[in-house]
Amino acid sequence: MYVNTTSTRVRYAETDQMSVVYNGIYPQYFEIGRVEALRELGMTYRQMEEEGIMLPVLEMHIKFIRPALYDNMIYIKTFLKQLPDTRIKFDHEIYNEEGQLLTTGWVQLVFVNKETRKPMRAPEQFIKRLKPLVSSSNGQS
Amino acid sequence: MYVNTTSTRVRYAETDQMSVVYNGIYPQYFEIGRVEALRELGMTYRQMEEEGIMLPVLEMHIKFIRPALYDNMIYIKTFLKQLPDTRIKFDHEIYNEEGQLLTTGWVQLVFVNKETRKPMRAPEQFIKRLKPLVSSSNGQS
Amino acid sequence: MYVNTTSTRVRYAETDQMSVVYNGIYPQYFEIGRVEALRELGMTYRQMEEEGIMLPVLEMHIKFIRPALYDNMIYIKTFLKQLPDTRIKFDHEIYNEEGQLLTTGWVQLVFVNKETRKPMRAPEQFIKRLKPLVSSSNGQS
Amino acid sequence: MYVNTTSTRVRYAETDQMSVVYNGIYPQYFEIGRVEALRELGMTYRQMEEEGIMLPVLEMHIKFIRPALYDNMIYIKTFLKQLPDTRIKFDHEIYNEEGQLLTTGWVQLVFVNKETRKPMRAPEQFIKRLKPLVSSSNGQS
Repeated sequence: MYVNTTSTRVRYAETDQMSVVYNGIYPQYFEIGRVEALRELGMTYRQMEEEGIMLPVLEMHIKFIRPALYDNMIYIKTFLKQLPDTRIKFDHEIYNEEGQLLTTGWVQLVFVNKETRKPMRAPEQFIKRLKPLVSSSNGQS
Repeated sequence: MYVNTTSTRVRYAETDQMSVVYNGIYPQYFEIGRVEALRELGMTYRQMEEEGIMLPVLEMHIKFIRPALYDNMIYIKTFLKQLPDTRIKFDHEIYNEEGQLLTTGWVQLVFVNKETRKPMRAPEQFIKRLKPLVSSSNGQS
Repeated sequence: MYVNTTSTRVRYAETDQMSVVYNGIYPQYFEIGRVEALRELGMTYRQMEEEGIMLPVLEMHIKFIRPALYDNMIYIKTFLKQLPDTRIKFDHEIYNEEGQLLTTGWVQLVFVNKETRKPMRAPEQFIKRLKPLVSSSNGQS
Repeated sequence: MYVNTTSTRVRYAETDQMSVVYNGIYPQYFEIGRVEALRELGMTYRQMEEEGIMLPVLEMHIKFIRPALYDNMIYIKTFLKQLPDTRIKFDHEIYNEEGQLLTTGWVQLVFVNKETRKPMRAPEQFIKRLKPLVSSSNGQS
């Protein structure tokens, strides 16, 4: 299983009048997590788009355990438990500075050829890079 | 089963460089849907907060089928399939002007007493209002 | 002087922990205003983009007088005081349901040819339509 | 004159279908800048709120020179040119990694007593800390 941890600081803009981070901000935190995971694996999302690959989101799940608060440093853990094929699934956990688990969730995306607009397999190089890090392509999550 | 339909127009601000609505915007569309459903059921979220009830989100699921596009009028359908107890679950479907299904999802929230910060039952009046509209409190979804 | 009034309802997502609309949301309200003004003048922004015209923002000013609150219906007034050339300037006023002025501001944008990425004059048809509504092209604001 | 520089990475969520950062995101970048400036000056905005001081925005100006692009690291410079009284004015410049100036702007905020909701002078300690860094309280900007 591959794991990446990155962090960001909660913006005032991200809070709502319940004085916690608004629920609709977490997809952005998940985005930050998977973008940094991909970068560490040698594949920036930006580069992918330039090479004609899009990666739209198919499905997303978020579970809210504790609220993230203004000015908190939060730690976004991103897990890849399975090798991608045409689809890729990122699992996420978000923690605060005290190590408390705030949120869990997952996001499934699909590799799409920008021209044909059809699903395509994940780039070969990316799978090669990921293979030794993910124990089995039949892993369940 | 109770159903409410409301609509909104996609803002430029809500698009991303894939030229579709960003995935993290849909929680806002779901919010618009449940707020208008509650209003139609005689309970504004604003009033609830003034009466000391908070309604944080516990869990959320989103499935992306077709993208919403800039300037589209989108139609947000909100379903209440079960009577709430301390929790309430809203199911959603989003359609475009052509009647195509763009997104499905659901959001589960919990009624919380603002002072004690503890879960509480949904307001009695709200349940009374909802009861004739929802066939059974044991409905599964 | 041309004036358009449109309205929108404040989302929970748009509030911050000061229990008012976050300052960075107002550019979206101004966007809603100018998009509806353009639509009323026979020119949707979407259509413009499809015809190869972009309209990026050059400069923006916002003055915050009273806060907009959650669930408020707000009324966005959009003024065109001068005929556009390569640039167009929208003036805005935002009011609440009680008719209180909440915000004033203006946004200046530039018409850009999508291919050459160079400034271009506003579409002829749009200027024709606007001319009788704007008293003078030399108006100052 | 006091200067602080901080950086952030452009999120996909922050782009729009013009493939640049949406104009309404820049107030968030300015927020990041002033929050880090205040932190370096020994005053977190979070702490201020806990001590009963609010700091709403009164006025804002943004000038867009070059677009910020997805995944860009951007550098937010925040300037304090004058000592605050009841009001404080932050000047901003945003640069990309190539050192190109993307945006300039300023934000004026007012110190408000949370209980009385009336303007108040900036905290004494903060002014003391800032005084040696800002040449003159009569500086114009």
